[in-house]
Amino acid sequence: MVKTEIRVIYGDTDQMGVVYYANYLRFFEAARNEFIRAKGLRYRDFEAEYGLLLPVVEAAVRYRQPARYDDLVTVEISLTEVRHASARFGYRLVRDEALLATGHTVHACVDREGRIQRIPRGLLERLGAGERLAL
Amino acid sequence: MVKTEIRVIYGDTDQMGVVYYANYLRFFEAARNEFIRAKGLRYRDFEAEYGLLLPVVEAAVRYRQPARYDDLVTVEISLTEVRHASARFGYRLVRDEALLATGHTVHACVDREGRIQRIPRGLLERLGAGERLAL
Amino acid sequence: MVKTEIRVIYGDTDQMGVVYYANYLRFFEAARNEFIRAKGLRYRDFEAEYGLLLPVVEAAVRYRQPARYDDLVTVEISLTEVRHASARFGYRLVRDEALLATGHTVHACVDREGRIQRIPRGLLERLGAGERLAL
Amino acid sequence: MVKTEIRVIYGDTDQMGVVYYANYLRFFEAARNEFIRAKGLRYRDFEAEYGLLLPVVEAAVRYRQPARYDDLVTVEISLTEVRHASARFGYRLVRDEALLATGHTVHACVDREGRIQRIPRGLLERLGAGERLAL
Repeated sequence: MVKTEIRVIYGDTDQMGVVYYANYLRFFEAARNEFIRAKGLRYRDFEAEYGLLLPVVEAAVRYRQPARYDDLVTVEISLTEVRHASARFGYRLVRDEALLATGHTVHACVDREGRIQRIPRGLLERLGAGERLAL
Repeated sequence: MVKTEIRVIYGDTDQMGVVYYANYLRFFEAARNEFIRAKGLRYRDFEAEYGLLLPVVEAAVRYRQPARYDDLVTVEISLTEVRHASARFGYRLVRDEALLATGHTVHACVDREGRIQRIPRGLLERLGAGERLAL
Repeated sequence: MVKTEIRVIYGDTDQMGVVYYANYLRFFEAARNEFIRAKGLRYRDFEAEYGLLLPVVEAAVRYRQPARYDDLVTVEISLTEVRHASARFGYRLVRDEALLATGHTVHACVDREGRIQRIPRGLLERLGAGERLAL
Repeated sequence: MVKTEIRVIYGDTDQMGVVYYANYLRFFEAARNEFIRAKGLRYRDFEAEYGLLLPVVEAAVRYRQPARYDDLVTVEISLTEVRHASARFGYRLVRDEALLATGHTVHACVDREGRIQRIPRGLLERLGAGERLAL
C-alpha cells in the first residue's frame, strides 16, 4: 500500500463547499502515479519500454464524508487484483482518522493500437503483484 | 430520458488524446442539470424551496470507447430508482451510434445540516418518478 | 465575432459560489473552437492539413462580475490581431446585458517540432483576417 | 518568496501532451495557499477572522516552455504590490533550471457583501508587505 498526500485547493471544490465529486478521480490518479513510482517505475517509461498502455475501463467512488478546502488528505492505494489483461486498484481517501471515500479503478492492458495484451510477467513482478496473480 | 449534447474541448482531454476519465463525471453532471430543468425545476430552486440537497454518495463509470477532442457527444440520463431517501440516475454517453460509456450516480436526500431526509412526494411527482417509487 | 453559449455546472464553480477563475480559460477555449468551426474549419483538420499548431503563449482575464452556477453565459470571440507568426483573440463573457469578464489569448504558429512558422496566407483568408493582416 | 512543488498528473495535461493552459492558474492558486500558510495564516481563517475575501480580479500567464506529465514543477510566488484595497502576486513556474511560465494575479479586498474594503494593516504586516505598502 502506498500513501499520497494532497492539499485541497479552491479549484477542487464546488459551491457546496466540498470537493467536487469528479475530482476524487484526480486524487486517485495522483495516487496511481505515486504507486508506480514507489515500485521504481514511471508510467511514461512503462509506455516507452513495453509499448503498452493501461487505460481505465471502470472507475467507482463511494463518498462518505466530504473533503474540504485546505484539507490535507491522504490517498491509500493498493493493487487489489491482477488478471491476464487487466489490473484493479483500490483506494481509500482519509483525513486524520476519518475515512472520506473509497473507490476502485480497473485498467485494461492494451498496445498502442488498442488491442488487449497480456500484462508482461516482468512488469507484474516489479509491481509486487506476483502473489496475487491469478493465472 | 433526457438528452444533453456536449462538445468536447481540449481541456477535457489528456495526453492519451482522449477525454480524461474524471471528466465523464462532469458530463454526467451537465446531464443531471438538464434532466432537472426538463422537469420544470432548477436545482438551485430545489435547494431554496425544499431546503434539501442531493449530494452524490456513489458514482461509477464504465469506459467502452474513448470520446475525443471536438466530438459532439450526447449524454442520455434516466432516473432509474427512487427510495425513501435516495435516488439513482443512469447514464449513457453516445456519439452517433457508438456507445462510449455508461454509468450511474446515487444521491442521498439531506437537509442543510446533512441529516438524511425523506424525498418529498411533491418533488418525486414533479420528477416523474411516481410510478417507480418504492414505499 | 462569434458567440458561444455555455451553461455553468457545479464542476465549474468553487466554494465561493462562483465560477473558479481558471475555468474562464476553458470557456474561452470553447469559444475558439466555435470560432474556427464558424469559419468552416476544424482545429484538428488544421493540424492535419497544414502541419501547424497554434499553442497559447499568453492568456489574460479580467474578472468584473462573477458567473454563477446554472448561468447561461455567452462568450463573444474576435480575432483581434494577426502578425506573421502569431494571432490574438479577444473575449467578452456576458450574461444577458451584464459584462462578466474580458480577456485575450495570443497564439504562436509552430510546426510539429515547435519551430515558429509564418501563418499561411490561405489560412488567414479562411479565418477572415485578411483586412487586419499586418505584413 | 515561497516555493510550492507540484507533480503534474494526466488530468493536468491535454492531448497536445502538455499541461492545459488553464491549469497553470490552478498551480498558481496552490502557490497562493502555501504563501499564506507560510505567513502563519490560513485563507479560511482570514475569511473568518477579518470577514474579508480576496477575489481575483485579474490573472495573466505567459507560457514559455510546456510543462509535461510527471514533471515535478515548482511555483515561486511573491507579493509584488499592495495598494489600499488590492494586492498583486507574481509567479514563476520552473522545472529544474528551466523557466516554464510567468504570471500574475490581482486580488481585490472585499467584504461579504462584495464592497471594496481597505486591507487591514494588521493583515499586511503578517503578510510581510509592510515595506511595500503604498499609502
